[in-house]
Amino acid sequence: MNRKGILIVVSGFSGAGKGTLMKKLVQEYDNYALSVSATTRAPRAGEEDGREYFFVTKEAFERKIAEGGLIEYACYCGNYYGTPRDYVEKQLEAGRDVILEIEIQGALKIRKQFSSALLLFVMPPDAQELKRRLTGRGTETAEVIERRMARAVEESEGIEEYDYIVVNDDLESCVKQLHEIIAAAHNTPFRNEEFIEKIRGELSVLAKGEK
Amino acid sequence: MNRKGILIVVSGFSGAGKGTLMKKLVQEYDNYALSVSATTRAPRAGEEDGREYFFVTKEAFERKIAEGGLIEYACYCGNYYGTPRDYVEKQLEAGRDVILEIEIQGALKIRKQFSSALLLFVMPPDAQELKRRLTGRGTETAEVIERRMARAVEESEGIEEYDYIVVNDDLESCVKQLHEIIAAAHNTPFRNEEFIEKIRGELSVLAKGEK
Repeated sequence: MNRKGILIVVSGFSGAGKGTLMKKLVQEYDNYALSVSATTRAPRAGEEDGREYFFVTKEAFERKIAEGGLIEYACYCGNYYGTPRDYVEKQLEAGRDVILEIEIQGALKIRKQFSSALLLFVMPPDAQELKRRLTGRGTETAEVIERRMARAVEESEGIEEYDYIVVNDDLESCVKQLHEIIAAAHNTPFRNEEFIEKIRGELSVLAKGEK
Repeated sequence: MNRKGILIVVSGFSGAGKGTLMKKLVQEYDNYALSVSATTRAPRAGEEDGREYFFVTKEAFERKIAEGGLIEYACYCGNYYGTPRDYVEKQLEAGRDVILEIEIQGALKIRKQFSSALLLFVMPPDAQELKRRLTGRGTETAEVIERRMARAVEESEGIEEYDYIVVNDDLESCVKQLHEIIAAAHNTPFRNEEFIEKIRGELSVLAKGEK
């Protein structure tokens, strides 16, 4: 069976709780590697360079783009966000499932380059809850919250592009659900071509009586 | 989230252990209903009418076909096998996941009628193990075993038509895996259209500030 790493893209509305989910998933199971994005946006209170993001200048980011060092990048609310290539490819080769937390434009770019990527979309249980979480965070201005709500409306149009949705109602059960969905993905025929070919070969030999 | 029933088709080589897996799955979790097929083949030792199969005459089977009372049927090794429609539709409406154990021809017919059916293929860990199990069952003649091996070669050509494969190495872990794959399937966007539409509607109302 397939134990090659799967590239997992996690998207979801701002405030849906993706960051917390991902951290918990990586803590609880040891087959995951969390990709850290590079961004030109300013760090929020409590964020650390290399943990939440690699915080870089616009110039450094554009140099990375030119060198082909990002597997995807996008501009969102005036800032660049991108995924460094090195780390992702190294972890996949080592058989680990690599998780990228990126928004929909990036997710679709990933799908084009990595056809077997798994796209997951995290939803709040309802829209009121989303607004409550965005407001409750206390780190954003009313204007930013409003812009994010408008953005959520836009992003919601793309949900059907994803392989699975998960509802982040209860953290523990949502983490378990994510893990099970990813485990299931390892069992798709197209991720197990070698194993299927092996069984086919063995069967035809045995069926001919050549033991 | 979706709690509509999913129609689950389980196929796999004869001897891969589908029957035992299905029984265990239904015992361990309460969201499943196991569809019992009708067949014109003779009962094996220990098989009971209405439990493993509904054993019917060729005439009775052909009457069912004519009445549209089967959602699929096929001829395999000279006998008819088919799925009675009533039971399946009633259970799906009641929100239960209905499991059909049928071979590939039937599986593909189901897919055409029920586009959201989930197709699972049970594999042995290797082909030798399959032959061992077929021989070990002790209820079949050498000729039947040989015919089944040849049939397995044919069926193996269709594995890519299935959504997932599971390897029946260890019964307990295989049952758990099946359950998790089915649970994951409830989270696909196309099985949650209503929920997604509801969130979209709520979001656009909230984004306009109409609380």
